[in-house]
Amino acid sequence: MARKYDVIGLGNAIVDVLAPVDDDFILTHQVVKNAMMLIDEFRAQQLYQAFGDKVEAAGGSVANSMAGLASFGARGKFVGKVKADRLGEAFAESLIANGTDFTTAPASEGPATACCLIAVPPDAQRAMNTFLGASRRLGPDDIVADDIAAANIVYVEGYLCDSEVSLQAAHKAAAIAKQTGTKIAITLSDSFCVGRYRDEFLTFLKDVDVVFANEEEAKSLFEVEDFDDALQRFKAWHGITALTRGAKGCVAVGGGEVHVVDAAAVSQVLDTTGAGDQFAAGFLFGLSTGRTLAECGKLGSLAAAEVISHFGARPDVLLQDLARETGLI
Amino acid sequence: MARKYDVIGLGNAIVDVLAPVDDDFILTHQVVKNAMMLIDEFRAQQLYQAFGDKVEAAGGSVANSMAGLASFGARGKFVGKVKADRLGEAFAESLIANGTDFTTAPASEGPATACCLIAVPPDAQRAMNTFLGASRRLGPDDIVADDIAAANIVYVEGYLCDSEVSLQAAHKAAAIAKQTGTKIAITLSDSFCVGRYRDEFLTFLKDVDVVFANEEEAKSLFEVEDFDDALQRFKAWHGITALTRGAKGCVAVGGGEVHVVDAAAVSQVLDTTGAGDQFAAGFLFGLSTGRTLAECGKLGSLAAAEVISHFGARPDVLLQDLARETGLI
Repeated sequence: MARKYDVIGLGNAIVDVLAPVDDDFILTHQVVKNAMMLIDEFRAQQLYQAFGDKVEAAGGSVANSMAGLASFGARGKFVGKVKADRLGEAFAESLIANGTDFTTAPASEGPATACCLIAVPPDAQRAMNTFLGASRRLGPDDIVADDIAAANIVYVEGYLCDSEVSLQAAHKAAAIAKQTGTKIAITLSDSFCVGRYRDEFLTFLKDVDVVFANEEEAKSLFEVEDFDDALQRFKAWHGITALTRGAKGCVAVGGGEVHVVDAAAVSQVLDTTGAGDQFAAGFLFGLSTGRTLAECGKLGSLAAAEVISHFGARPDVLLQDLARETGLI
Repeated sequence: MARKYDVIGLGNAIVDVLAPVDDDFILTHQVVKNAMMLIDEFRAQQLYQAFGDKVEAAGGSVANSMAGLASFGARGKFVGKVKADRLGEAFAESLIANGTDFTTAPASEGPATACCLIAVPPDAQRAMNTFLGASRRLGPDDIVADDIAAANIVYVEGYLCDSEVSLQAAHKAAAIAKQTGTKIAITLSDSFCVGRYRDEFLTFLKDVDVVFANEEEAKSLFEVEDFDDALQRFKAWHGITALTRGAKGCVAVGGGEVHVVDAAAVSQVLDTTGAGDQFAAGFLFGLSTGRTLAECGKLGSLAAAEVISHFGARPDVLLQDLARETGLI
């Protein structure tokens, strides 16, 4: 498949804003440790101003995966909505800097660029507060048929279900992909997200070729208690599934095959943020370049191991080099 | 399958002799921590006499599994060779006490009943010293066709390869099983054992219906480095395979199915001796009673979790009750 892009990704365009806070901050500002909450623009501005030393980093699940794909040397494009503001520009620059195309027109009006305000207390139990802002405005008009046709795979973020027009955009992209022979991959994103939109996901599965899910998301989708039960449901489904299990590694399923792939060795686990996003990057890179399911699983595990060994949700080294060193490519 | 026995087991009849020792003992008697060594009768007598406070317990891998099967309420018979001596009588009594039939004629001459002399130093890194003695004399004459025909499954210990006549006994049992519709199960026993008798095992696989292997044994059998590669080899094979992975749980493979079953919850891990033996007990109990592969895996995991929560290689509670409490039967 020699198309212009390996992967075109559709997702929420979000800038992460991290700040160290003390326990007083947690109480005063009533943020919740170890959880992700959706907040409105007013609250986002309050928290942003209350944050002291801030670090900003382009984020968003599928956008993180696109950064990982670029690090593997894959050719990619991201589709997502920012506003024409400072954070929106920073988001765009970060993608372009790592070699990912990004041409979605920014919104000139409406809410500001999405941000995830992450309060990091001394015990590192992050309190994530997401203002979806402009990202929710991604709509069908932002889907360019020629771009979908130019990609081996279109990769869709499950979180898009949180906005009706973004879900329409995903369906439009999928319909074009069907016509142009572009494979359709989705990530279930989050077990709460699956809980909110189970029916939408199950309907979408009929058209989808590849699903990414962690253990909790997979069990939530089929409302089963055992990992193996979810695995069997995916095995009976027509597509390819990559099931991630943290330290237990992953299981790659498809075409009657089941591969049990160990987690890659990691010297230290510092921050598991982005593990799923980078796993998807490696797996999609493998699929786009015609590798076997087991090889795709190993590439995903390699990328996940790299990103959890340091702070931040995107790779610190060239994943292409890492994959060469370990003999995977 | 309403036969007289669920399982008839063929294995080495061994009595474990455990003694606490200090570090001086390790040096003076040159035993090796964390390892199993084969020793001769002279050395066995030396160590036995050097041991202070001794605890004797009937052992042997398949004999341990038979004890587990009885604990599940299964009907079983064990075939193995002891000598007509004190340890031989103790071995026989332990089996009969837990409800397992045992009628193999004891040897009236030749080496003593097999024993595994286990020195337990303060750091609990056991030094195991096995004198195979009379157990190696198990031969074709000890195989009773009517007993094999009366069982759903004949379960064969891989360690039998260490004795030529015992291997002949295993082949005789397998040949009878073929004619009588008795399923044949084997355990690979130990990765070093696999290394010594790889060709024998691979030849034997043609006739076998069920294989038990831990991760190292499975990789050794096919001389591959990745667990998944071994898994794929077993998936392409005609039979059922139960692959155990310690804390990572097990993978049950057969008829195109692959089930990834988590390890059962365990409050404390005190002594992993017998984990594989009891896993096999639970899995075989499931197979003999017509349960699904996933259910067999769960029964195996349950029994393994019980035995590692206390010292000793046989269950401390009725596995039948435990399985009922957890809703597995």
